[in-house]
Amino acid sequence: MSQARGDVWSPVITPFGADLTPDTQRFVAHCRWLASNGVGLAVFGTNSEANSMTVAEKKALLKALVDGGIDPVRMMPGTGNCAIDDCVSLTSEAMKLGCAGVLMLPPFYYKGVSDEGLFRYYSEVINRVASSRLRIYLYHIPPVTQVPLSFELIERLRAAFPGIIAGIKDSGGDWAHTKALTERFGGKDFAVYAGSERFLLDTLRAGGAGCISATANVNPSAIVEVASHWQEGDADERQQSLNDIRDLFEKYPLIPAMKAATAYFSGDDDWRRMRPPLVELENNKASELVFALKERGFRMEGVSEANDD
Amino acid sequence: MSQARGDVWSPVITPFGADLTPDTQRFVAHCRWLASNGVGLAVFGTNSEANSMTVAEKKALLKALVDGGIDPVRMMPGTGNCAIDDCVSLTSEAMKLGCAGVLMLPPFYYKGVSDEGLFRYYSEVINRVASSRLRIYLYHIPPVTQVPLSFELIERLRAAFPGIIAGIKDSGGDWAHTKALTERFGGKDFAVYAGSERFLLDTLRAGGAGCISATANVNPSAIVEVASHWQEGDADERQQSLNDIRDLFEKYPLIPAMKAATAYFSGDDDWRRMRPPLVELENNKASELVFALKERGFRMEGVSEANDD
Repeated sequence: MSQARGDVWSPVITPFGADLTPDTQRFVAHCRWLASNGVGLAVFGTNSEANSMTVAEKKALLKALVDGGIDPVRMMPGTGNCAIDDCVSLTSEAMKLGCAGVLMLPPFYYKGVSDEGLFRYYSEVINRVASSRLRIYLYHIPPVTQVPLSFELIERLRAAFPGIIAGIKDSGGDWAHTKALTERFGGKDFAVYAGSERFLLDTLRAGGAGCISATANVNPSAIVEVASHWQEGDADERQQSLNDIRDLFEKYPLIPAMKAATAYFSGDDDWRRMRPPLVELENNKASELVFALKERGFRMEGVSEANDD
Repeated sequence: MSQARGDVWSPVITPFGADLTPDTQRFVAHCRWLASNGVGLAVFGTNSEANSMTVAEKKALLKALVDGGIDPVRMMPGTGNCAIDDCVSLTSEAMKLGCAGVLMLPPFYYKGVSDEGLFRYYSEVINRVASSRLRIYLYHIPPVTQVPLSFELIERLRAAFPGIIAGIKDSGGDWAHTKALTERFGGKDFAVYAGSERFLLDTLRAGGAGCISATANVNPSAIVEVASHWQEGDADERQQSLNDIRDLFEKYPLIPAMKAATAYFSGDDDWRRMRPPLVELENNKASELVFALKERGFRMEGVSEANDD
């Protein structure tokens, strides 16, 4: 079930002010820049420090994006939460604003929970949101949540809520798992997204939908190029270029590294700020990263202009 | 720095109605029963399914307890959250209501976070709550959070916020760790609580303060007896009786098992209900547990009368 064009989403990094509140203006500007580069907005992902924000903060940011003229059809906010009501509240807001879908973490406090418990959680959310427009992309990220989503659970959810369970983001970091997911579930009614552009070409070749990847925050156009021309002759070569840039970022904690790069290329040092418990990249490491990026000719073209809005 | 009487707290189990909303009346009744048995109320702990509730739900329950005439000096609500503002909001409410202190999880979404990041998190919370009455009991529960609190972090927090960092609950399940914590930090200005009554006597003998233990929900008076008479000759024998009861509960998932026992002894089957992703104990297992408890002469005396309030 191969697609003509792959689909690329960015778990948008969130800028914070000196008082650690989200910087709405800079956030909207960054989203506008990403959208202009052809990247969908998976705001409120792991790389967005989303779980370090309250539901009210996330609702306000989502509304600011829509008020800022960004098309909600290109938005897939993360809405998963440990408490059902928090997840329902944010998911309902996303539906109200016309978002394409939501990316939904399982509840992640308890470990070793059963498929039955996870099925009840997702069922309860779906029944309470009660919208036929709802499209849920499951978020499998066991290195962080320690709560994997089994094939049996996915199967059961798809059978119970056809159309609503619309896909999955696999951030397990294991290509064999993404491949198996794609082979079993991938197709026009179930979008399998790799959690890193490192697996973009492989995912598209296996019948997946594309990727939802951290570094789409900083390297959007090159990733979109691969997704758009993945059946062309130079695809492997282009994929290798993506991997090379990803390698540079992965030498450091990824979120602070992306914020450091964005700070440098936008000329706005405030971008480096993190919400605890995460911490910003040290100065020397930030300089080292920027030097390595520039040496490769890497740029974030237009990111500073977008921020002048 | 041994104490005349050890201190026992219960992470209070939370009753939910058919629509999964917290059953306030039954919650207040259970807290009243626990308090009448000499147990402090560490409401909103892991065993309370606290992270499956919203901040607003927890605030409402806390207020209901105080309105219900329960002394806030015997309350230590759990207020830790992934988002600083959620933690600040609930902690401030607890202070406003006159609670003795709060039990504070570290932010638990990200894994592998640094001591610096955790220090910033706790510092930010303390500075925002801005109350000299604030007493924080750190909550170390790596089997669930996967975010341990290092001795270096505890040391740094105590030095920065003397008086405010008042103790710790060690739910790591490793006595050697609780012992080392007690030896290094335990004393009149830092209360070390074991996370299970299994370690109650050992903790008190080592200079710790007592325990904050799940099964204090169902076996409060016997645990309080050990804590109150821990220097007497029959203490080891009494401790063994506590362990025997704990063994029975630990044959099952602990929270559903405690709810099943409470349902049986209160005659109120609604107590069995869990919020997803947790699930209630199956009927046959609940019967098996109750049979084993009754065989040992175990009772929850007065729990049903309390519920008649």
